Parts: sequence; structure tokens; C-alpha cells
Amino acid sequence: MLIELATGAQETKTRILQMAAEQNALAASIPGDRGGDVLAIGTPLDADVAAMPGVLRVEMKHKPFALASLEARSKSTVTVGDVVIGNGVPVIMAGPCSVEGREAMIEQARLAKAAGATILRGGAFKPRTSPYSFQGHGELGLQMLADAREATGLPVVTEVMEPDQVELVSSYADMLQVGSRNMANFNLLKACGRSDKPVLLKRGFVATLEEFLMSAEYIMAHGNPNVVLCERGIRTADPAFRFNLDLNIVPGVQAVSHLPILVDPSHGTGRRELVHRMSLAGIAAGADGLAIEVHPDPDNALSDGPQTITPDELAHIVSRVHLMSELLMETEHGVTPFEPLEVSA
Amino acid sequence: MLIELATGAQETKTRILQMAAEQNALAASIPGDRGGDVLAIGTPLDADVAAMPGVLRVEMKHKPFALASLEARSKSTVTVGDVVIGNGVPVIMAGPCSVEGREAMIEQARLAKAAGATILRGGAFKPRTSPYSFQGHGELGLQMLADAREATGLPVVTEVMEPDQVELVSSYADMLQVGSRNMANFNLLKACGRSDKPVLLKRGFVATLEEFLMSAEYIMAHGNPNVVLCERGIRTADPAFRFNLDLNIVPGVQAVSHLPILVDPSHGTGRRELVHRMSLAGIAAGADGLAIEVHPDPDNALSDGPQTITPDELAHIVSRVHLMSELLMETEHGVTPFEPLEVSA
Amino acid sequence: MLIELATGAQETKTRILQMAAEQNALAASIPGDRGGDVLAIGTPLDADVAAMPGVLRVEMKHKPFALASLEARSKSTVTVGDVVIGNGVPVIMAGPCSVEGREAMIEQARLAKAAGATILRGGAFKPRTSPYSFQGHGELGLQMLADAREATGLPVVTEVMEPDQVELVSSYADMLQVGSRNMANFNLLKACGRSDKPVLLKRGFVATLEEFLMSAEYIMAHGNPNVVLCERGIRTADPAFRFNLDLNIVPGVQAVSHLPILVDPSHGTGRRELVHRMSLAGIAAGADGLAIEVHPDPDNALSDGPQTITPDELAHIVSRVHLMSELLMETEHGVTPFEPLEVSA
Amino acid sequence: MLIELATGAQETKTRILQMAAEQNALAASIPGDRGGDVLAIGTPLDADVAAMPGVLRVEMKHKPFALASLEARSKSTVTVGDVVIGNGVPVIMAGPCSVEGREAMIEQARLAKAAGATILRGGAFKPRTSPYSFQGHGELGLQMLADAREATGLPVVTEVMEPDQVELVSSYADMLQVGSRNMANFNLLKACGRSDKPVLLKRGFVATLEEFLMSAEYIMAHGNPNVVLCERGIRTADPAFRFNLDLNIVPGVQAVSHLPILVDPSHGTGRRELVHRMSLAGIAAGADGLAIEVHPDPDNALSDGPQTITPDELAHIVSRVHLMSELLMETEHGVTPFEPLEVSA
Repeated sequence: MLIELATGAQETKTRILQMAAEQNALAASIPGDRGGDVLAIGTPLDADVAAMPGVLRVEMKHKPFALASLEARSKSTVTVGDVVIGNGVPVIMAGPCSVEGREAMIEQARLAKAAGATILRGGAFKPRTSPYSFQGHGELGLQMLADAREATGLPVVTEVMEPDQVELVSSYADMLQVGSRNMANFNLLKACGRSDKPVLLKRGFVATLEEFLMSAEYIMAHGNPNVVLCERGIRTADPAFRFNLDLNIVPGVQAVSHLPILVDPSHGTGRRELVHRMSLAGIAAGADGLAIEVHPDPDNALSDGPQTITPDELAHIVSRVHLMSELLMETEHGVTPFEPLEVSA
Repeated sequence: MLIELATGAQETKTRILQMAAEQNALAASIPGDRGGDVLAIGTPLDADVAAMPGVLRVEMKHKPFALASLEARSKSTVTVGDVVIGNGVPVIMAGPCSVEGREAMIEQARLAKAAGATILRGGAFKPRTSPYSFQGHGELGLQMLADAREATGLPVVTEVMEPDQVELVSSYADMLQVGSRNMANFNLLKACGRSDKPVLLKRGFVATLEEFLMSAEYIMAHGNPNVVLCERGIRTADPAFRFNLDLNIVPGVQAVSHLPILVDPSHGTGRRELVHRMSLAGIAAGADGLAIEVHPDPDNALSDGPQTITPDELAHIVSRVHLMSELLMETEHGVTPFEPLEVSA
Repeated sequence: MLIELATGAQETKTRILQMAAEQNALAASIPGDRGGDVLAIGTPLDADVAAMPGVLRVEMKHKPFALASLEARSKSTVTVGDVVIGNGVPVIMAGPCSVEGREAMIEQARLAKAAGATILRGGAFKPRTSPYSFQGHGELGLQMLADAREATGLPVVTEVMEPDQVELVSSYADMLQVGSRNMANFNLLKACGRSDKPVLLKRGFVATLEEFLMSAEYIMAHGNPNVVLCERGIRTADPAFRFNLDLNIVPGVQAVSHLPILVDPSHGTGRRELVHRMSLAGIAAGADGLAIEVHPDPDNALSDGPQTITPDELAHIVSRVHLMSELLMETEHGVTPFEPLEVSA
Repeated sequence: MLIELATGAQETKTRILQMAAEQNALAASIPGDRGGDVLAIGTPLDADVAAMPGVLRVEMKHKPFALASLEARSKSTVTVGDVVIGNGVPVIMAGPCSVEGREAMIEQARLAKAAGATILRGGAFKPRTSPYSFQGHGELGLQMLADAREATGLPVVTEVMEPDQVELVSSYADMLQVGSRNMANFNLLKACGRSDKPVLLKRGFVATLEEFLMSAEYIMAHGNPNVVLCERGIRTADPAFRFNLDLNIVPGVQAVSHLPILVDPSHGTGRRELVHRMSLAGIAAGADGLAIEVHPDPDNALSDGPQTITPDELAHIVSRVHLMSELLMETEHGVTPFEPLEVSA
């Protein structure tokens, strides 16, 4: 059940949470539209909640992803460092697939920023299909990312791969990334829920819209309301692409959830020559921003070279993204209709 | 093999086609970039073709979809009535899923045109999953479409379902549609190849990029160079959508083929509330136009109501599509780079 | 609606069909379990059908594939030449992918028969992805198949690709095959419905169980009750296999339909080394038989060599299939339970 | 690279592992076919390994899943408690989806054993799509499983969900299960690699054969050779089934790997009425055993009821499985060929 409280209804909130605990029901809250909290309780409470002081609204029927749903609240924003995601200005996360070294990381961060990036991405812990492949620089890589942030002012997002790493990664990064392979690693999601850092949740290879939002709900139900979704391509049978960027999910999520959603055209295509157009398409579909792999020398990147673009290409994409985004904002609520040809008969 | 001829090399063309016939090789041609024809021959000819008069170029290695490939020619346009597809101005195909009646069709055509549609679509022969469902008005429906063209001046595209119908449908329509279920109905493709009407080829539910272009090649190799592709969603495991619009295919096709490609956000989502955003996304991905189901009263449309929008919504989409398309054209080859924040360190 | 009639209720049948025609409803019948016909009518009739003489049963709620459903009748058999499909003895369809020549065909038929095949398969009209590939020997190939039947006594099944070919193919073959790419070619299905030859309907690359049975229903609703289904692999994202044999569909179909169903482990794997085990698995799943590509020299077969086995391998498979099938029949309704280890505590 | 050593070549092994460590290459070993170890080294060593004493064989080209490949060794067995998996006798893992309580668990274990089960399965830590669903009894559930083992003698397999749980679960269970959602949770795989308990690795919803074996390789490369694979259905677009059991993977794995592989027809269909036939199909495809959800009252099971069968049904399946398995073993290397009808002409 969902319960919206008025501002200051702290006592009622405490009582409800206590009742939930007595019923062994999971309970959590996020800020509501009217200043107070919205609570989700895992099972219906044995009490007349609607009659309690400060209760604005009780919903017994709602989407299974209660806190993530539009029934909980309207469009939300998530702040990473000083960057706001979801406020209408497309956020550009960019950086190399893997952190490669301290100097390289700082230089790449400068280039990304000069090209228009507002958040720096890079992998220190790398999920690799082969146990024999480079597994990332680990904590050393986290330090390199922090140094790059120091040098450029860009906040940093990087992947966390197990519950025990959440504290460590949180001590360096501004945002935690849960990778596609871990979208349904529920213990990791719970651990991210206990963190105070915002979380970038990437969609699984074959996750449905509902499963995607249920994974976001795990994080929120365990205490962390700051979740940003990221579409990064689904797996299909077409060998022409590494993955197929599924842009339906963007307006599809927005039709049922208040969470911001980004698009990753690098993984979503696997081919650098498609990144530009699919970035534009992602923004046109309504995404709140992009996550793009960029490297000064893509052919020699430590990983994911075939889908990585140069900073120059990024700058071109970013320019067009911002112009297009402004145009779409201006014309959202109606424009002078297109002038058709004269109807002849 | 591909052979490009100079203008006027008619004699060489005749000789090559004769040689191909002697070797029982399929042979066909399309107009090349330099005024002469480009010939595709199914098997290598036993002759020094390069030395023949008027031969500009011989390619022994090329994509399996020879005539459809960029190795044959650069970006092509297809003309339907007086509408040019592929010249940079997005074409808007719109109309009801099924032709419902004469007066209704004419009224719907007027509304579609007023909303910015430039080609009228509507089904007379309807492929339906159930043999007990309405199968379309057949030839009567074709006549209704022709009447709507008469009334509005909009050229008409409609589906053809078997080789024997090609002549009949061609006698009424300006463009033949091959539906998704028939994308690999090779005998139908051959029959469309022998028609002088342009063909709209919709992608199969699970067709790869290569299979899609091979089906286009069937039409071209049997004599008809005027093929327009249409992405209409692939089938995936997510029940949130009827199909998943696969926009990767748009820049993916354009990276290897000169054929125009449209996007159908109605079938590609199955949900009318997603059509607007996915139309914008399709154009941003680089599509040459859109195919949209529109009906004055979607809830009472004879078929496909849940994915059908109103003429008013279409008008709004079309306005934004044209503004966005112009912006993207203007900024294609570089814009003043986005002004990033000052790099601090 | 479904209506079961008693034996001899010819007058009632005529009247019902007339009423259906007056309501423009598609109507067809198949033999019922109790000797009379079972009729499916596309829309409910405006009459008290249950009260008409000889009406045993009226079902207003049934599966959309009415005639193909278990609500119409229990397990049915289909006879091809003198071979009965669905009577508990696994049928073995075998032969080359393409008919290659008269002498070759006769020799291959002899080898297939000696290995245990009971129906001969081979393609005269070949659906090929490329227009430049060999498209089959056409009518000449049909004649070769007929000659091979003459030589061996094996009835022949071969593919038909368009409505206009149904009559021609029927004049040579004992069974018509509708290929996967044409599973939803509804005009072809209708034409097969008007034929008096049994039909082998192969499942589409991504067809759902319901779509598969709806395609069978097209054939039955247009007059031909003799449909045999064939699972031949679905398309998935795993490059390890050409297709993935989906054996769930075998008991899945049998839970809702009376139609026999075969399994094609050649297309369903794409790899000859997997054919043996997947043949056994198909029969264990409950299939009524197998369709297998066999060739005396698979590496030099005109098409599909990598998934083609030798007659010797076929003989080994057939032996085990029959032994396993007998064992499964004997133990279907219970066997002495497996003797577990003594429970210690 | 793969290196096979002779028995007793301990010194060489030590030296090679030291060289690998110096090159920062991951190195691990499994028992080889000839008594000595087979080592996989992540990168080629800078030394003439072939010339070292006791080196029987060096393979520079091999499958990426080196230790799991047939290039490392031939068919292997894994022992769980006193049950051997992979020796030709199908192993039957059975039990409820979730551990429900102590008495219930013991009773269910007795029933499973009486029905022919040889390993007991049951979930104490449950991965659930919703954070609000029952998440399992945790350590208490592990204790209940241990009590059921005590009562019946059946060894126990249960799921582990994060690296930190490996030690805890290992202290109660005889085998660790890595669930489908965690197949590519590489940190969990590494932690299982450091355990001395055998591991049951379930295939991911959309994992390719190669990815499946690479995940097994993670466990082996981190020290644990005792991996058993389990096919449990892939996700497709057909709503008729929860998942589609992909039996191609069984002979597909056996063509490249020595690891045992089980089949889970419960998750692989999602429908209890299909479990019997798909169990038979799995064994016929060559699986080394089955993992089946069984419960005395499936409709009231805590989870997965629709795919759960009763102990009686299990007993019937097990009987037929053993009879069929024996038949297939006896006839593996050839049987008297099937007696075909006389060839007439």
C-alpha cells in the first residue's frame, strides 16, 4: 500500500513504520509531491490508516513498483555532485569504458568536459565475460577517478559489483552504477539502497519494463530514493548489432514512473558509427540524458573500442543534443500546425 | 558481381545481360551515380567485363544485397505519385489500419492531409491472425482508396498479399505494401519486382538487417528499383509493448544501403501514447519519414485501435517532426560547439 | 462457436451452414469424436442452435483456434499415402533439403527407406534468402519426387510457396508443406485449405503457440482438416545454434490441440552432430514423428549440408526412436515405481 | 594456454604457477585424463613450457573456457555427498522452491526420497522480483535443510546470493547453487571458486552457450573444479510458457565441454502439466539428471506452485527416466537396425 503524508506528519510516519515492523512488512518512503513523505508498505496494515492524522492519501491498488510509480509522485530529479538529472537539460555522462591510468584518466576527463560532458564515467571494477580478461584497476582505479574529478570538477559515476564494495566505491564516487548483469542481483540492490549515494541502474539484457522498475524499487524500498534508470540495449537475434537500443522503454517508463532515465547508445549499438544518430534518437524519445563511451584513441582503448567515439564526435553530438532538446521543450505543448498543401477537391 | 556502366553503354549492357542469361544467372540493373546503369549478376561472368566499352567499374566483392548496397550507388530517392521519399523532407504516410467505407475513407484522407500527411495508407486486403476476423474489403476497399486519392490528391499505399494480387492492387494504388508477415514471401517479392509501382517493404518480426535487405534485393533483382524500407518493430519478450521499435536499424541500414527507410511507431509500440515520442525518435535516428495509423475515433477503429492516434495528435507530431528535421539538416555537418563550463584545474 | 452434430445430421448441418452464409460468417467442419461433424462458425448464429435436431453440443467459449482445439475433438490422425501420422508409431520423414536430380533423388529415396524413413521429403520450390541462390528445380523437381515415390513406394511431401502453386504441387505430391517463412502467409494457407492433400505446417521463426495453431485453423476453416504441425526451431540470440528446437511446444500443443505434431531436429539445431540426440528428445517430448534432412554425402549437398546427416546415422536414430517410443507407450500409464534407497532415519 | 602434466610433476607445476604469478596471469588447474593436472594460464608464458619435465601437452589454441573445455579433459563427474553426477545414472534433484518450515522440509525430503530423488533442493535465500515478497528463511532455512538431510540422508543443494554468503551456505549445504539471475555475477562466481563445495550453475535467461561456459570457467579458474551446469529455460516471446527449455544446449555443451549438465523442466516450462514430458526429453537429449520442483500440495506451495508437481508424479517420472536412460545406454553404440518395409522397385 502507498500512503501520502502531509508535511510534518512525523509522528504518524513513525507509528506507521512501527506497525509495518510489527507485521514484518518492508516499509520505506520517498518525498511526495506535497512536501510530506510517501510511504510504501509491503503488506496492507491492519489499521484504518486513512483516519490517522496527516494522512493525505491511501492507495491500496498501485503498480508493484510502488515507490517508483507515478502513483507515488510526479517526475523526480536526482542530483549527482552539482548536476541535476531530470530537470529538462540533458545530462551527458561520458568517459572511457575502463579507467586506464591516472594521467590518462585526467586527460580523458578534461577532453570529455571540453566536449560537453557533465558527469564522468569510467570502470574501476569491470565485469568481464572471461576470468582471464583484465578485471579493472579496482581501488586504484577509484582513486584515479577521484583525481580526475579533482582536476575537472566533474562528478564521477562508476560500477559497484558486490554488496561489500558499496562502502568502498561510495567513498570515492558521486554515483554508484549497477551494471546490466547485476540488474537482478538483489543483494547488491539492497546494499545500494542502504547507501547515501545516487544509483545509476542499467537495464538487464532481457529485462522487461516491469522487472527494470522492480529492481529500482529494491533500491528505493531499502532506503535510497535517488535512482536513475539507464537503457543500454537489449539482446536480440540480429548479428548486425551488439545490442538493440530499445527506445520504447523511454516513453514507456515515463508513462508509469517518475524516475529519470538515460540512454546509452554505445552499448546499445556496439558500433561507434551509430552512436551519433542513436544519441539524437534517445533524446527525441524523451531521455533525460546520455551515457557515452568516449576515448581520445578508440582503437586503442583498453575495452569496448568498437563502440567508443572520440571527444570531437562527442562535442558534435552534444551541440545537436542541446539544440534539439531546446526545440522539443519549446514545442512540447503545441506549435503552429504544419502548413499542408491545399486540399484540391 | 556489380558492374557500373557509363551513360549510353546500351550495347555493352545488352551483351552482358545476354552473357548472364547464357550462364543462367539472374541479372538486373538500377540507375548508377554517374548516369549509366549498375548491373548485378548472380554469378561471376566468364569474360573480361572490365575491358568492355563503357564499363566504369567492376566489383567482385560486395554485400550479398548487391543492388541495395552502397557499393551499387549512393543514397537514392523513390517517387510515389508526386511525393519524393528520401530527399531530406520527412514523408508522412498516414491513414486508418483498415479501409472502413467510402465516405469514411474520404473523410479520413481529408483529415490526414490537413494534419500534414503526404501519402495515404489503408488496408483493403488485411492479414489477420484469425481466419474468422474481418479480412478487409478487398477490391472494393481499393476503389475506396482510389476515391480518397481523387478527393485529396494524396497518393495511396496499400498492402498486397499474394503474387496474383499485384496486378489488381497496382491498378488502384500508387505504391504496393509488402507486410511484415510476407517479408520473406519470396514469390510475392518476385511479383512486386515485375511491377512498375514502388514498393514499401516492412521488416519481418524477427528479420535481421541482412535478411531485410536481401528481401529488398529480391524486388530489385526482379526488375523494380523503387523500394522503400519500413522498420515497424521487432518481437521481444517484454509484454509492455506489442513490438519494440528497433531504431538501430535506421542508421544501420544507412551505413550499408542507399534505400530510403521509414519508421512505423504505431506497430512499433502498439500503444498510442508512445507514438508521438517514437515518431520524433525515428526522425532523429535519421528515418526518411513515418508511417502512422490515424483515425478520427481510434477507440472505434475497425482494427488496431490501441495504437491509433487522432488527426489532432498527428498534426502536432508532424509540426515537431518538420522543425526537428530542419534543425538536424542545418546542423548535420557541424555546429558551433556546445559551450562547456570553464575547466577549473 | 463450435457445434457437434450426431451422425447423419446432414440436414441440420446444411441449415447451419446456410445460416452462417447469411451472416457472412466463415464456417467449416471436421469429423467429431462421436461420428458426426464438428462445425466452427466465425460468429455466433442468431438462432437456438442447441435445440436443432442432431445437435449434441454447442460451445460458445472455446480457444480461438476452434477446429484445431481439443474442444473440437480428441487426438486426431492424418494419413499420407498409406502412412498414418498420430497413431503412436513415430513417422520418419527424411530426404535431402533440395531435390538434386532424378537419379540422385531415387537413390536417396532408397537409402532413406532402407534407413527406416516412411515419408520422403525434398524441396522442388526452395525459399532462399538470396535471389541469386538456386531456387529449386521447380516442376521438374516435382516429377523427380514422383519418380522416387514410384521407385520406393514412399509417399512424398514437398513445399508449396504461393497459392497458384497448390494445384500443381498437389498433382505430384502426397502432402503439401508450408514453410516457416510462410506460416503467416494467409492466402497460401487458404489455398491449402481448398486442397484435398494433407498439409505439413512448419512453425514460424518466432511464432507463438497460439499463432501456430491459428495458422492451422486457417487451413481447417477453409476446408482441409488434415493438418500436421512441425516444430523446427525458433530464432534466439545464441550463435551456437542456427535455431533453437523448442520442445516445450510439443506437450504445449498437445495440451490444447488434437493435431499431430512432428519435430525437425535438422533446422532446429543447424548442426548435424546434434540431430541424433535432439531426435530422441523430440520423441521423448511426445512428438508424433521426425522430419530429418539426410543425404549420402552431406558435405556436398546442394543446400543445408551442415545440418544434414547420412543414411547410416538415420538408421541408428530410427532404431533407437522406435525402441524408446515403445518403452514410453508401455510405461505411459504407470510402471512399478523406481526402487529408492532405504530411508535411513 | 593449457598445459597437461604427468602424475607427480609437482615441481613443474609450482614453477609454472610462479611464472604465471610473475606475469600477473590468472592460473588454475583441474585433474587431467592421465592422472596429472591440467593447468590453464590466462596469458601465454614467456618460456618453453613444452620442454619442462613432466609436461605432456601444451595447447596454445583452445576454447576461451579453457578448463571447462574438452581440450582440457574428457567427460568429468562431480560428487555431491555420496551422489555422483555424470556417471551415466541420471541424478534427480527435487524439493520445494522455498524451504517452508522444519517439519514440512523433513516431510518433503522423505517424500522426495521415496519418489526417487537423490539430492534435495530447496531455497533458503530466495531471489524474488519484488522487494516486498518473501525473501526466504535465510540461515534458519539452511538449518532446516540440514535437518532434512539428517533425517533422510539426502545431500542438499541450495542457493547462495552474494560472495559473503558462500561461507555460511557452505557450512550447511553439500552443494552451492548459483541462480540464473546471478550467472554473470562474477564476484559471486569467484567466491564460489574459492569454496570446496561443488557448484550448481544455472544458465541465465538469455545466456549464450559460450557465456554459460565462461561463467563455469570463472568458478574453475578461481580454484573449484566441481561445477555442474543446469539448463532451466531461456526467455522468448511466447506467452504460452514462462520460459522455453532449450535442450539444444545439452548436446551443444557436451560437444565442447566435459562438465555434467542437468535440466530443470519446472522453470523451463513454468507449467506443471509439461514437466513429465520435458523431463523425459531432457534425459533423451543426454542430460546427466533433472532438477524438479516438487511439493505435496503444489497449489499451496510458498512459491512457484504452477510449475510444481506432486511426489506421486515425480515417482512416475523417475521410473520412466531410469528405464529410458538404461535403454539409451544400451543402444548408444549401435543396435540392430530398424527393419524397414521391403523396397518394392
